[in-house]
Amino acid sequence: MWRATILTIFPDMFPGPLATSLAGKARARGLWALDCIDLRDHAPDRHRMVDDTPAGGGPGMVMKPDVVARAVDAVGADARPRLLMSPRGVALTQARVRALAQGQGAVIVCGRFEGVDQRVIDGRRLEEVSIGDFVVSGGEIAALALIDACVRLLPGVMGREESAHEESFSDGLLEYPQYTRPQLWEDRPIPPVLTCGDHARIAAWRQVEAERLTRDRRPDLWAARQARLTGAKKGPPKA
Amino acid sequence: MWRATILTIFPDMFPGPLATSLAGKARARGLWALDCIDLRDHAPDRHRMVDDTPAGGGPGMVMKPDVVARAVDAVGADARPRLLMSPRGVALTQARVRALAQGQGAVIVCGRFEGVDQRVIDGRRLEEVSIGDFVVSGGEIAALALIDACVRLLPGVMGREESAHEESFSDGLLEYPQYTRPQLWEDRPIPPVLTCGDHARIAAWRQVEAERLTRDRRPDLWAARQARLTGAKKGPPKA
Repeated sequence: MWRATILTIFPDMFPGPLATSLAGKARARGLWALDCIDLRDHAPDRHRMVDDTPAGGGPGMVMKPDVVARAVDAVGADARPRLLMSPRGVALTQARVRALAQGQGAVIVCGRFEGVDQRVIDGRRLEEVSIGDFVVSGGEIAALALIDACVRLLPGVMGREESAHEESFSDGLLEYPQYTRPQLWEDRPIPPVLTCGDHARIAAWRQVEAERLTRDRRPDLWAARQARLTGAKKGPPKA
Repeated sequence: MWRATILTIFPDMFPGPLATSLAGKARARGLWALDCIDLRDHAPDRHRMVDDTPAGGGPGMVMKPDVVARAVDAVGADARPRLLMSPRGVALTQARVRALAQGQGAVIVCGRFEGVDQRVIDGRRLEEVSIGDFVVSGGEIAALALIDACVRLLPGVMGREESAHEESFSDGLLEYPQYTRPQLWEDRPIPPVLTCGDHARIAAWRQVEAERLTRDRRPDLWAARQARLTGAKKGPPKA
């Protein structure tokens, strides 16, 4: 079973929003599991200190290497990747989420304060993962986002229809605009093409809209897609 | 006071992880406020339906424009931006977080299912915001991340030291590696430069490490920074 193990100083934050909705129902049905390790349980002193001042000076506190290592080691050896949620990490993508969902789960260390001692990141091969180019107060909410993204892709969690759709969403484009009833709302009609009944025309319209949206809002994704398509054309002909 | 108003079909997910830690303490001290509007309370029928099938066909369900509009209108008129958490949105950045934190708060619509009818996004000028290039099951966890990022920047939430540091973090570079006691851990010493006591040398080492990390892990951020620095050099001389 897919299992997330969270190392945190705030175990009360879990399962939090993952107790409800799609992820909560899937967990109740035994489709995935979650457990938390309180980092403070692995602090050697009676004050349960997990942090100390940064070497070289500077504000804030740094998580101690020995405490984090002890907690990681307590998980035991298994094939799951060891992740550290951190704004310094490689940016999480849907491709990475898909790969994680196909594995056995993840061990997720939630950074706090000014970060984690680099030696335990190196020594325990923690893979730093970032959810976006902004700073949150700790890795816990980032871990919730990562787990939610993985869990919805696990077999049996979503209906078959949504799963299939997910695949088409991931061709490097943002999704086209959606509409539903009523036909006319506040003088705004549903675009007529969507009610014409011609599936090919609808698909073509949606493709144009998805491309327009991606070009306008995410020039970075658009450029990456164009480079991929151009590269594919320039590639060697198949035998 | 900075106020987040959440429009969701899962009000139980809030404050969730924001009840604890930095954000929770700040809320207890009256530094920010949170309220939720249950979208189902604004559904006109007795089944409290908030979604319907997509016009033009396709899997999943779309959130109805009338229900979302009624809930947004119930918030009343104020200066706060109306955001819609959505993977189709513009990517959230620390600059945008800083701007939001300097305002009066945010009204945040949490999308679910296949998304929200485009007419209410247009009609109520909802600004689509994405936390990253991956898909979660709904906007709720994304909203938690956005609020946490904003709240930590509000006056009085962090100590003065951390706030000042935050500014230096945001020059387009990932943060340098951190170390703390013990001096030697599992045969790994703290880099000697950090214990030399020479603040200029320490600052120079940290700058080099931050640049190296950014170049290796985030070529996109690195390229943007190089373009900015080159642009600044090429700019017209000051009078």
